[in-house]
Amino acid sequence: MIVEVIAVGTELLLGQIVNGNGAAIGRRLAEEGFDAHYQVVVGDNEDRLVASLETALRRADAVIVTGGIGPTQDDLTREAICRATNRATVFSEAYAEKLRARWEATGRVMPESNLRQAEYPEGGEQLPNSKGTAPGIALEHDGTWIFALPGVPQEMMGLLDDEVMPRLRRVAGGPAIVKSRLLRSWGMSESQVAELLDDLFQSSRNPSVAFLASSGEIKIRVTAKANTDAEASALIAPVEAEVRERLGTLIFGTDDETIESIVLGRLEERGWRLATAESATGGLIAARITSVPGASRVFVGSVVPYAAELKHRLLEVPEETLAEYGVVSEETAMAMAVGAARLLACEVAVSATGSAGPDEQEQPAGTMVIGVHTPEGTAARTFRLPGDRERVRTYAGTAALQLVRLAVEGSWWRT
Amino acid sequence: MIVEVIAVGTELLLGQIVNGNGAAIGRRLAEEGFDAHYQVVVGDNEDRLVASLETALRRADAVIVTGGIGPTQDDLTREAICRATNRATVFSEAYAEKLRARWEATGRVMPESNLRQAEYPEGGEQLPNSKGTAPGIALEHDGTWIFALPGVPQEMMGLLDDEVMPRLRRVAGGPAIVKSRLLRSWGMSESQVAELLDDLFQSSRNPSVAFLASSGEIKIRVTAKANTDAEASALIAPVEAEVRERLGTLIFGTDDETIESIVLGRLEERGWRLATAESATGGLIAARITSVPGASRVFVGSVVPYAAELKHRLLEVPEETLAEYGVVSEETAMAMAVGAARLLACEVAVSATGSAGPDEQEQPAGTMVIGVHTPEGTAARTFRLPGDRERVRTYAGTAALQLVRLAVEGSWWRT
Repeated sequence: MIVEVIAVGTELLLGQIVNGNGAAIGRRLAEEGFDAHYQVVVGDNEDRLVASLETALRRADAVIVTGGIGPTQDDLTREAICRATNRATVFSEAYAEKLRARWEATGRVMPESNLRQAEYPEGGEQLPNSKGTAPGIALEHDGTWIFALPGVPQEMMGLLDDEVMPRLRRVAGGPAIVKSRLLRSWGMSESQVAELLDDLFQSSRNPSVAFLASSGEIKIRVTAKANTDAEASALIAPVEAEVRERLGTLIFGTDDETIESIVLGRLEERGWRLATAESATGGLIAARITSVPGASRVFVGSVVPYAAELKHRLLEVPEETLAEYGVVSEETAMAMAVGAARLLACEVAVSATGSAGPDEQEQPAGTMVIGVHTPEGTAARTFRLPGDRERVRTYAGTAALQLVRLAVEGSWWRT
Repeated sequence: MIVEVIAVGTELLLGQIVNGNGAAIGRRLAEEGFDAHYQVVVGDNEDRLVASLETALRRADAVIVTGGIGPTQDDLTREAICRATNRATVFSEAYAEKLRARWEATGRVMPESNLRQAEYPEGGEQLPNSKGTAPGIALEHDGTWIFALPGVPQEMMGLLDDEVMPRLRRVAGGPAIVKSRLLRSWGMSESQVAELLDDLFQSSRNPSVAFLASSGEIKIRVTAKANTDAEASALIAPVEAEVRERLGTLIFGTDDETIESIVLGRLEERGWRLATAESATGGLIAARITSVPGASRVFVGSVVPYAAELKHRLLEVPEETLAEYGVVSEETAMAMAVGAARLLACEVAVSATGSAGPDEQEQPAGTMVIGVHTPEGTAARTFRLPGDRERVRTYAGTAALQLVRLAVEGSWWRT
């Protein structure tokens, strides 16, 4: 089944915004096995939008239009669909009433133009938009489906998942439910993970297994199609168990969980508090941890001893350690972590020292050493990270958080 | 003059990457006054690419294709252009020689498929790609121009600016040079800046004046068209001078300069070193400063006293100050800055304390207080920032860097 996406908006043609909606819809369609041959961007111009719709109706089995369904005069998608399908506009008195009531509740007078949102093509239906005022539109025309969705990404995605995808699945004759489980792993390359899971990847069609790498994390997505949510969950469960069995502690979370929130949760469970001592990462790890609301329940603070003398003066890294092993060494990293836990009076501390590039500092650019101290021990690990300064620092931040997780879980990093 | 953009690549249709090239080209065309009616995305499929080209040739005066000009079998743009324009393929022996020499220099054997990059449509020309191996293509066909550019954004932009735009300008009969000057400002809203510069914005067509807001910064772009670079510069100069006159110290940099690099530069000029003391920003300011290579010449380090007791114990904020004014107060912020300069033994320190949200802490969410200490004085300023936790912290980081700049320049923030 071929689905074409038309994004409407002069601001897209002018490059004032990137067509993220097109990519998001394309991804969703691909995940569920629908084909895409073309995507089109057209400005707020009725004739050109009608022409784009006519072309799409000729070459696709379904057309998804985003944008142009708001209340203003340059919102032309409703009119264009009526013209392209040669249909009259009908007016939803029920929706108009709802709109009026909403405005009345805020004590303001509704501009008449808002009633445009109560219009839709004859034979079609309005799709409820729980996140905004402009309803979507669904219409079957000569065997081809047309959907009109808002341009606001959040509203668009809501209607896509709740209204469009179920209809497309029904038309395609497939199961009604598509459910995904995301398993997040860290500590192996994408190709290593793919190799470990190769047979699952090859053999499985339902559920299907896919990989996605980002910022050093490898995500494994298990997607099942079924007629009910419970059936889909039942299909996913044994594959998830098998993946967890093979990857062990490499799996750190699922779905929307982040390593930041997981580290904070694990520490809170054990009643431990955390500090960071960051040289090469310059405060990045602390910034990531404190991006989580409520981090103060666990996170005590940080020292960034960027100047070398502060490593000794504030964190009490012995001068002999610095002299013998160097600033960028596992010995120094461990001493920094121990010193931070002492200075900031907490149980756990993570440290980072290294050479983020582009210039070398003792070690080749990309060398990052992470140290972790907990009441159960102290350890360090050296990484040689690829990429530019920003990428090296980001990867090092993720590595630091992962090593804290492993240490707090008691598995350290002998995986 | 109407220009149509066709982006080629199945990965675009699948949503694996967003069509940033389309937006970037759209922006550049709009800046120079070219019209855009449609943008199309098509997969790595020769028939559909030919169909897209034929349609674009009918309705546009110039067509820019991105992607599909590499050496592999799914790079089909060359063949598709030949088919759509009914032209033979010619082979550039000179370019083939260059390719062979490049591979020889690395001591490797060139796969024969690479020679595909030496092919181009009869009557067209190859455009040199200084950032990659795949050359672009330019071809005039029945009065319509066709350009083929690489899909890699950096290579694409290089060829767009160096080869495509000058040809389009020549065809359009306009001046050969378009030059922009970006003035970066901070401290006013976009609407305030627009109001202050309204007459320049209204009256000026060459140079034109445009505004762009991002992360609390307002950028003012002055763009001139002329026949020579010197003429364009001469057109820009008086408008730039007028903007600087009106906005004064709100203007902090030009073109690619960032506030991070400017703060480091200003401090280095004065021979001062910098520390940060960050509570609500949690290390974000330090992380931003240390993202600049060579920051260690100026930046000493940071303390993140996230736990309240550390403000007193490490930074020596008097307990009476904390009790009387609260943690989120200008008095505490100033004491934190003074304390950080003392503890980290440097001349300048910036502090941040506040309530980033979503929960309140003493003050409403979005309240951020920045303190600055230099050898010339100590001051603080309170901000009420909009948005979620991440946005508030980012804005606060920018504000902190800007206040350091003003203080180091000696103008503090009595603007």
